[in-house]
Amino acid sequence: MKLTPVKGTNDYLPDEVALRDRLQDIILRDYRAAGFRRISTPILEDIENLDHSDGGENLALIFKVLKRGEKLTSALSEASDVSAVKENDLADMGLRYDLTLPLSRYYANNRAKLPLPMKVIQLDRVYRAERPQKGRLREFVQCDIDIIGTSSYTAEVELILTTAKALSDIGLDDFTVRINDRSLLKAMIASCGIAEEQSDSVCIELDKLDKIGWDGVSSELYEKGIYGEATEKLKALMSRTPFTIDDAESAVPGSPAAQNLRMIMSAVAELDPSLRVVYDPTLVRGQGYYTGTVFEVSSGSFGSSVAGGGRYDGLIGKFTGENIPAVGFSIGFERIFSILSAKGDAVPGARKGVVVFYDGGDPDAFISAERTAVTLRDEYDVTLMTEPPQKKFGKTLGSLRQSGYFGYFRDGGIKPL
Amino acid sequence: MKLTPVKGTNDYLPDEVALRDRLQDIILRDYRAAGFRRISTPILEDIENLDHSDGGENLALIFKVLKRGEKLTSALSEASDVSAVKENDLADMGLRYDLTLPLSRYYANNRAKLPLPMKVIQLDRVYRAERPQKGRLREFVQCDIDIIGTSSYTAEVELILTTAKALSDIGLDDFTVRINDRSLLKAMIASCGIAEEQSDSVCIELDKLDKIGWDGVSSELYEKGIYGEATEKLKALMSRTPFTIDDAESAVPGSPAAQNLRMIMSAVAELDPSLRVVYDPTLVRGQGYYTGTVFEVSSGSFGSSVAGGGRYDGLIGKFTGENIPAVGFSIGFERIFSILSAKGDAVPGARKGVVVFYDGGDPDAFISAERTAVTLRDEYDVTLMTEPPQKKFGKTLGSLRQSGYFGYFRDGGIKPL
Repeated sequence: MKLTPVKGTNDYLPDEVALRDRLQDIILRDYRAAGFRRISTPILEDIENLDHSDGGENLALIFKVLKRGEKLTSALSEASDVSAVKENDLADMGLRYDLTLPLSRYYANNRAKLPLPMKVIQLDRVYRAERPQKGRLREFVQCDIDIIGTSSYTAEVELILTTAKALSDIGLDDFTVRINDRSLLKAMIASCGIAEEQSDSVCIELDKLDKIGWDGVSSELYEKGIYGEATEKLKALMSRTPFTIDDAESAVPGSPAAQNLRMIMSAVAELDPSLRVVYDPTLVRGQGYYTGTVFEVSSGSFGSSVAGGGRYDGLIGKFTGENIPAVGFSIGFERIFSILSAKGDAVPGARKGVVVFYDGGDPDAFISAERTAVTLRDEYDVTLMTEPPQKKFGKTLGSLRQSGYFGYFRDGGIKPL
Repeated sequence: MKLTPVKGTNDYLPDEVALRDRLQDIILRDYRAAGFRRISTPILEDIENLDHSDGGENLALIFKVLKRGEKLTSALSEASDVSAVKENDLADMGLRYDLTLPLSRYYANNRAKLPLPMKVIQLDRVYRAERPQKGRLREFVQCDIDIIGTSSYTAEVELILTTAKALSDIGLDDFTVRINDRSLLKAMIASCGIAEEQSDSVCIELDKLDKIGWDGVSSELYEKGIYGEATEKLKALMSRTPFTIDDAESAVPGSPAAQNLRMIMSAVAELDPSLRVVYDPTLVRGQGYYTGTVFEVSSGSFGSSVAGGGRYDGLIGKFTGENIPAVGFSIGFERIFSILSAKGDAVPGARKGVVVFYDGGDPDAFISAERTAVTLRDEYDVTLMTEPPQKKFGKTLGSLRQSGYFGYFRDGGIKPL
């Protein structure tokens, strides 16, 4: 038998789960307080739905579930020989790689029973067959809010404020919300004279700007056959620092996307003046399904993205056949957990643990200890423990203190450890 | 694209998730108060671990995960032809079918960092490829507490009391705990003269006694070649009503298992006199890994099992190589959910939902409504909504009331709906 969890997955110790649960409780409380309601979808999804979603590079990372019994036998026997067998002949389901595709299917499946606009919480596990050497998890928790059924900028405002409140309530400070609109970026790309069919490739490269710089972007664009005057013009335009929404509007006069970004940023500034929100003209975000606004939260002290999202007005229509606008914001739960776990602070708001000792050889002592425990459980998490021999008592107390217990019962009261 | 969730899985609506989350909160609170601590293991497990576990008939119900890339190609190319390809050539992982096998692996993997005895909570999803026509779920939540590292009857007492408190706090009453010990049952079977190698088969049949009666049991035993004087003797012994622990002890004088059952039942009776605990000499429970006590909770008003468990002293040793006693109790979360969901009562302890309306055409009205919402969110779950036209206002309020909202903001206060 193998003792370790499968590659890219984790066993979590009790202290870690206490922190994870507490973080989830705080996030859920803030989300619910803002009028979002939690839904739940299966981890298993139909393989066709997964394969036909706009998941970008995630589509190559789907864990597929083997067909069973007769279905598997006939899939195999239909192949002329083993080299002709394809992955999708063998699998009928897969593990979801995000929560947005299942949400779209869910909305389409249940819309008769759902309000519109609908404010949704999803907090659940997703799976990606990442290369383990990258240190990435293959099983991890995502934590999303989405608003379905409105194109209004107010949806973006609600998502940003709610996400920022949750991040700050779980103890993250010093973060910045960066925001952009893909349609504005594409209009700027077009304004430089780059052909529309090259626009997506340019976006993908711009997304890497902070990692590889303009030199890297230029040479990768060159390899894709995108170079010349238009590309130079784009570089000159986008290299301006600072680059404001005014600059974007000069490049693309009368852009509704620029006006929309202004509305979002001004409402957020009025409602939460301490929140730092900046326009980032090159922000793209990976997912193929984003159509308009995109946002990302980076934490200054940890130098990395802790949340992100955007508008995906086309995805639900793939299921319903009619266009339904939608926008979502996802907290990178695993990153937050590893940041706060490394800090090592006590879990905020957790109840205190207390031990009641009893003589392990005496059934009546057990009953009396359990009676004591029951009276203490309104206030404490109380466990029973057989009393160690006198000379080991001090050592036992020491190790209980180390394990995070608050105290033990003695002489009618709680003695702190 | 397919709209419905895959067979045997569910989309849960917001009201359903509110109830599920609330039930889980109550259960977790009771478990934690009793000194149990939650752990978390991956849903994916190594296929060898799953296949070599004592999962009984569940082993045939494992969802297997297809190998990827090079591993899959070489697995296929190693087969001489398609008919030679075996399921396990193609899969390297599977979805766990219960939480007990992962717990055993977890304990063996992390024991250096864990206390002994260890009191564990697991509340998570498991997967079984049940035949959909049976109406059984293929993805469902299990809700377990286990005590690892003690053979004392006090572990059983703690599990029974904690489970009973959780069941009663989530609103289930009128339930009975039935208890037995497999080793006592086997000793009685042996005392009738049935050979030891036939003992497991007899147990499996006795487990069906409440469904098929003695006639059914006798004829199924006959088909297995188990009949004659010893079988008649067993039937005569076990048919006694009532069948008390005294009767068991007359059949197997000096049985330590009978004495242990007495200790458990008497301690539970002292600590929770209102709890109904009965000795059920034919209780077996399906899992192959149970070695001693087994228990089951049945709910009178719903006529079915809502929780069950037992002692599995051999399973952890499969991973560690040394014998470590363990005992667990699992609440059938999905059954509880469907019972309480059908009752349709309000979700106990949920916060009230309130709506703040604003003029959708006026950005300042949105900001002022959001400001109002923020002040109300300490007490209520507050959502913003664009105000409907005057003549539709009454209808909107009606549908909000139907959706479970408590009130809306008007003239500086909350107006109940």
